[in-house]
Amino acid sequence: MMRSRLLTPGPVSLHPLAMEILSRPQVHHRSSEAKVHFARTRELLAGAFATKGEVLILTGSGTAAMEALLLNLFAPGERVLVPVAGKFSERWAEIARAVGLSVITLDLSWGDVVTPETLEPMLLAEPLEGLLLTHSETSTGVLHPLQALAEAFKRHYPQGMVIADAISSLMVSPFELESWSVDAAASGSQKGLMCPPGLAFAALSPRALSKLGGRGYYLNLERELQAQRKGQSAYTPAINVILAVEGVLERLLPRQDQHMALKVEVNERLYAAGVRAGLKPLPPGEVRSPATTAFWIPEGLSYDRLRDAFAVRGAVIAGGQGPLSGKIFRISLMGYADRYDADAVAGMLDEILAELAA
Amino acid sequence: MMRSRLLTPGPVSLHPLAMEILSRPQVHHRSSEAKVHFARTRELLAGAFATKGEVLILTGSGTAAMEALLLNLFAPGERVLVPVAGKFSERWAEIARAVGLSVITLDLSWGDVVTPETLEPMLLAEPLEGLLLTHSETSTGVLHPLQALAEAFKRHYPQGMVIADAISSLMVSPFELESWSVDAAASGSQKGLMCPPGLAFAALSPRALSKLGGRGYYLNLERELQAQRKGQSAYTPAINVILAVEGVLERLLPRQDQHMALKVEVNERLYAAGVRAGLKPLPPGEVRSPATTAFWIPEGLSYDRLRDAFAVRGAVIAGGQGPLSGKIFRISLMGYADRYDADAVAGMLDEILAELAA
Repeated sequence: MMRSRLLTPGPVSLHPLAMEILSRPQVHHRSSEAKVHFARTRELLAGAFATKGEVLILTGSGTAAMEALLLNLFAPGERVLVPVAGKFSERWAEIARAVGLSVITLDLSWGDVVTPETLEPMLLAEPLEGLLLTHSETSTGVLHPLQALAEAFKRHYPQGMVIADAISSLMVSPFELESWSVDAAASGSQKGLMCPPGLAFAALSPRALSKLGGRGYYLNLERELQAQRKGQSAYTPAINVILAVEGVLERLLPRQDQHMALKVEVNERLYAAGVRAGLKPLPPGEVRSPATTAFWIPEGLSYDRLRDAFAVRGAVIAGGQGPLSGKIFRISLMGYADRYDADAVAGMLDEILAELAA
Repeated sequence: MMRSRLLTPGPVSLHPLAMEILSRPQVHHRSSEAKVHFARTRELLAGAFATKGEVLILTGSGTAAMEALLLNLFAPGERVLVPVAGKFSERWAEIARAVGLSVITLDLSWGDVVTPETLEPMLLAEPLEGLLLTHSETSTGVLHPLQALAEAFKRHYPQGMVIADAISSLMVSPFELESWSVDAAASGSQKGLMCPPGLAFAALSPRALSKLGGRGYYLNLERELQAQRKGQSAYTPAINVILAVEGVLERLLPRQDQHMALKVEVNERLYAAGVRAGLKPLPPGEVRSPATTAFWIPEGLSYDRLRDAFAVRGAVIAGGQGPLSGKIFRISLMGYADRYDADAVAGMLDEILAELAA
């Protein structure tokens, strides 16, 4: 039997406690027992987002929470700035247009880091109601300086709203909602929380809560807020995954600093192994997201050959997206993995690169 | 240890194959293996809906598929008729208003059966673009005559669209999309498919496919159609539940007639047991949905006492919703259960009613 390894930046290797919880018999989401777990999971998530506001649990992909935030925190026609430097910041711009916002993009190269300095000229030039940011850009492996960007925006637009995609940063990299001047954020169950996909989270600071509208039906956060304050959701939730998220967060939150330090160390070991083997990382060292590595594919190699070489060894990696398709590959251990797993993957990478060079 | 019994009309007792599949390690939804399973699951679902069109898999509650169908098959301002006779037909009206349709309701009592005769006066009086129907009304236990209603509508409005909520009827009661004159339908994973909640299905007849718009972002079916024809979804799907649905449908579909006959027999045994114990069913015999029983709560008893009496025996039942709250209770074995389970529940019901009467 071949050991299988999921090395993709979401979904990830599940926490064994999540797997155990997912193997239990079905529970009913409106039982009094389920309500206690639902409320506790929201409380734990508020801890993970470091907010004194509230987190709403949606059944859907992270994208559902991104759309819900824009639908319910902005009115059609309001102007938002979106620095685009990868697949997921591009998604912010697409969703904002789809819900009728007026979108100004700052178009950077995929893999660039958004800094307060790159943002500054846009901030002076435009009247804006919001700034949409990607914390960890999973498509390029870059961790953007969220707090600095949010604070730069708020200096010009103290009444504006800063919304962050924290999908691959939550519980992987430090994140603080209102103390970083971020008003709302989206995340999901299948990245740093080491659970299966199926849940999206919409975190709302006290300020965002006070501005919440109620647009849409399935993604109407006003409806959800009313239901979730009673320990329920407006519609049948993926309660199985909620229980798994609760279990994992009960374990991780009390030691989140050590956990995040481990995720940084694991990712750096993967980068170091790649560099030793002659690979060039996409993001510079100081802005690397611990959620995933991203390497340029060496001259003479193709993504398909790399992917297949990992596949015959039981491992699944990720390729590049959009303009980076065929140009980079990504390996992630943000799920259930420790530093020794990084060494295991390093060994596999060495073997593969030697084989393909031969 | 007390044996636990989930007797609610969704979520339901899981199929053991679903539980086994859900306990497996995480897979990546964009791997070539996952694409094969994704495509196969869509094919099996098309079989379940009896459509030559296509089924789109959404990560969300059934409500998400209901909203997606209205968003993508009607333009704002178009007029739809909604006969309201329970919680879920009421939901059709709410969603239709939320997406900007012009909604004409036919307001019946909760528990009433919608017939072509009740519909007829509305059909003559109004110009209409659509009819929104609930096949199995889970809140009242009524199975509406979907085909007769759809055909009555189409006689007056051959260009109109008939959309059905098949959430608690799919794989429980016979269902046929285009041959019943229905254009599109919504369902979910946590009812007759005996899987956990988390997936919604949007079934589109060939005619509906030809009329598909592309509104919204997360619920944009045009985007989903493009992605799903390649064995993927537009956003990270609840792939674990997709694999479970595939497994269960591979088993159930080849013997769906026997399976549905069993669901009818099980539900009738539950009704017979209730009647023997002196209970009065809500729906008349000829329109009972095999998805759930619904009984009036006898004079002198309360829902809380009934629920608690089941709870101390390890069983979870459902109460009434909306105007039926506190007036009815519901017991369902639409999940993984056979006729002997119905006898087990009958024994429990006898014991409880005798105890509460004493």
